[in-house]
Amino acid sequence: MPREFETSAPGFQAAFDAFLAEERAPEEDLAARVRDIVAAVRSRGDRALIDYTERFDRLTVTPETLRVPEAELEAAAAACAPETLEALRFAAARIEAYHAKQKPADALWTDDLGVRLGHRWTAVAAAGVYVPGGKAAYPSSVLMNLIPAKVAGVPRVAMVVPTPDGKTAPLVLAAAQLAGVDEVYRVGGAQAIAALAYGTETIRPVDKIVGPGNAYVAEAKRQVFGQVGIDSIAGPSEILVVADAENDPAWIAADLLSQAEHDSVAQSILITDDGRFAEAVQRAVEVHLQRLPRSEIASESWERYGAILLVKDLAAETPGLVDAIAPEHLELAVADPEALLPRIRNAGSIFLGRHTPEVLGDYLAGPNHVLPTARSARFASGLSTLDFMKRSSLLGADAQALEALGPAAIALAEAEGLQAHALSVAIRLRNRAAE
Amino acid sequence: MPREFETSAPGFQAAFDAFLAEERAPEEDLAARVRDIVAAVRSRGDRALIDYTERFDRLTVTPETLRVPEAELEAAAAACAPETLEALRFAAARIEAYHAKQKPADALWTDDLGVRLGHRWTAVAAAGVYVPGGKAAYPSSVLMNLIPAKVAGVPRVAMVVPTPDGKTAPLVLAAAQLAGVDEVYRVGGAQAIAALAYGTETIRPVDKIVGPGNAYVAEAKRQVFGQVGIDSIAGPSEILVVADAENDPAWIAADLLSQAEHDSVAQSILITDDGRFAEAVQRAVEVHLQRLPRSEIASESWERYGAILLVKDLAAETPGLVDAIAPEHLELAVADPEALLPRIRNAGSIFLGRHTPEVLGDYLAGPNHVLPTARSARFASGLSTLDFMKRSSLLGADAQALEALGPAAIALAEAEGLQAHALSVAIRLRNRAAE
Repeated sequence: MPREFETSAPGFQAAFDAFLAEERAPEEDLAARVRDIVAAVRSRGDRALIDYTERFDRLTVTPETLRVPEAELEAAAAACAPETLEALRFAAARIEAYHAKQKPADALWTDDLGVRLGHRWTAVAAAGVYVPGGKAAYPSSVLMNLIPAKVAGVPRVAMVVPTPDGKTAPLVLAAAQLAGVDEVYRVGGAQAIAALAYGTETIRPVDKIVGPGNAYVAEAKRQVFGQVGIDSIAGPSEILVVADAENDPAWIAADLLSQAEHDSVAQSILITDDGRFAEAVQRAVEVHLQRLPRSEIASESWERYGAILLVKDLAAETPGLVDAIAPEHLELAVADPEALLPRIRNAGSIFLGRHTPEVLGDYLAGPNHVLPTARSARFASGLSTLDFMKRSSLLGADAQALEALGPAAIALAEAEGLQAHALSVAIRLRNRAAE
Repeated sequence: MPREFETSAPGFQAAFDAFLAEERAPEEDLAARVRDIVAAVRSRGDRALIDYTERFDRLTVTPETLRVPEAELEAAAAACAPETLEALRFAAARIEAYHAKQKPADALWTDDLGVRLGHRWTAVAAAGVYVPGGKAAYPSSVLMNLIPAKVAGVPRVAMVVPTPDGKTAPLVLAAAQLAGVDEVYRVGGAQAIAALAYGTETIRPVDKIVGPGNAYVAEAKRQVFGQVGIDSIAGPSEILVVADAENDPAWIAADLLSQAEHDSVAQSILITDDGRFAEAVQRAVEVHLQRLPRSEIASESWERYGAILLVKDLAAETPGLVDAIAPEHLELAVADPEALLPRIRNAGSIFLGRHTPEVLGDYLAGPNHVLPTARSARFASGLSTLDFMKRSSLLGADAQALEALGPAAIALAEAEGLQAHALSVAIRLRNRAAE
């Protein structure tokens, strides 16, 4: 049974705080093992990469076969069902259109003292995308990670994907080609992250690494951070559904399960103001579970980590609860979701109204499905075009503008005891005075 | 003597690559010690914070005196020289105006299938700013870290600043008040970071922590990342000056030294196309050093880490060298800096023209002085208003839009073997079909 809370019950706050503080996926301490792998790839390059691939993926590769040739990508696409490819193309076009709207504008202006100010955005020169292999090989993740990089204008995007026992999902390769990948390598794990960060004879280093992976991959990303940029470390997925009694319980139950089926440590939470509706949702969950192929996983997630929050006043209580939970996905299955929106601070992605199941966002509506987990929506955002770009600030003064700014800069430099700072301004002012 | 490279000399590329790979400040391994401190503050709260403050800062505090009262901030401001305060106010207003331009816009649009799409930016609910105490107490850093948070709209900004032996720089407190800080606590080190991340009886936890600190602070930020957001881990500062022979060598020498005087592991690099100019700059450095109070630090930095790159063609060679160095600060002391700009990818902050010494940006021009170091301008940006905000993606479909998106979403969910995903869409389409 999922946990049930009544917000008006005595002791609610303490119980809810304890619930929020629960760690669903305690981190394993792999630091030392990953450090060895990273060091080996750093010092022995391809040789180490090939050894680890043989050992962990049971796949024999050579420097020549590390890279997946273009022809293999094309063959993979040809092997996919045409209607799935069509759906993938439809998704790619929508994801591209959404992320194109995120491209930031450069600016350069002159203020009233004649100082030119501005900023300029540029794409990173090279990005690496990690794609899990084996059972968790999702073509949708390939699109979600690659497309923002290409929209940002990254000239070189390299993908790594392990192929345990030599097996690759054709749809994963087809999605990569569709998204415009520049290079694909059949390596994975911490060794692939190390190769992307430091480079080997065959794989040139990149500047930014994104993409989900197992605990080894996450730890390797943590360790190479600084050498390269990384996206956030993804935790298990969550959904929070806010639903009044006007919803069909079977719809809401399906939404809760769509999250739960990802992972036995995924989390689905329902907020509602109607106890009978909550019961109906729970019954509908049981009914759905009887027919779902991943019912074992979904059921474990729902029983262990699921929760139902029963509130007295949905409109009044929802914003505070949402902000405390800071969910990765938030469905507002109410008549007027826009009325709640301005009062909500923390949520990775928000789904408005009864006809917007989260799944649309998982695949093809446009927004990214790589979103902040484990309450990190308090401070982090979903993956975006901006993650593949960086900003240079711009500043330009002529002699006159320097004269306007100089004296105060000198005063502050002197107050901080930094005389060379003061000198670099003063020497230019003196010169101007002597002109 | 700083290193000299001629880009046309044989073996340049290998020597330059080795130069770029040098680590100026190798990391100490403080992980275990910091882990103990963080765990102690997490479990014992104020008590641990007070113990560590007694031990490391030789300061006795109580839960009641941990926080610096408003009156003490006002007294600090009153103790500062009026002209310095005036300069600080001038700087604060300019920094605020620049960062206000960074505030992102929300968007909500409807596409041709009737799908509502958009994004919404919100400020983090609470931010913590770390300010070093003692000798590296810089009021300019207080402004640069606090103002973007307030511009972003963060309702609660808490500052921590250690006061070794009870001493605080009045200008630091004055700057904090000027920038609109909400709470100031007289604690520092890893224990202050832990208090901000996990909270104690006296200090409520925050969602994001920014600000520079020593190796303990950097390691603590690394460890609490995930629990809260952090800014980047700052390394030693750098400047790259691109200067032709039309510059006054004494000006350029002062700019190189303004960076060098920060830290003996700071780095100043000059790119020029004129060997005699390079020699003149070196002589001017020697002359300046004779009068600078921090000449010992500046000289050590310049001798050990400084470099001069002599090129044949400044316009042709500069962009490639800049991108490889990816400097924190880039001065383009040439007649037409804008001509170089579109060809440069990696630089934290760019200073345009001969009358724009970096120091203007350090204090008051407007752009932030917290910038990516150690080649991280390849993937990172300076501190900005965006660092205190996060984005929720928005998605809204009505029954008709769901019908347009649904079938492809179902196809992809089925291709990934996620039947509850498919169900959450299909169940709504079925219902629609039955209407």
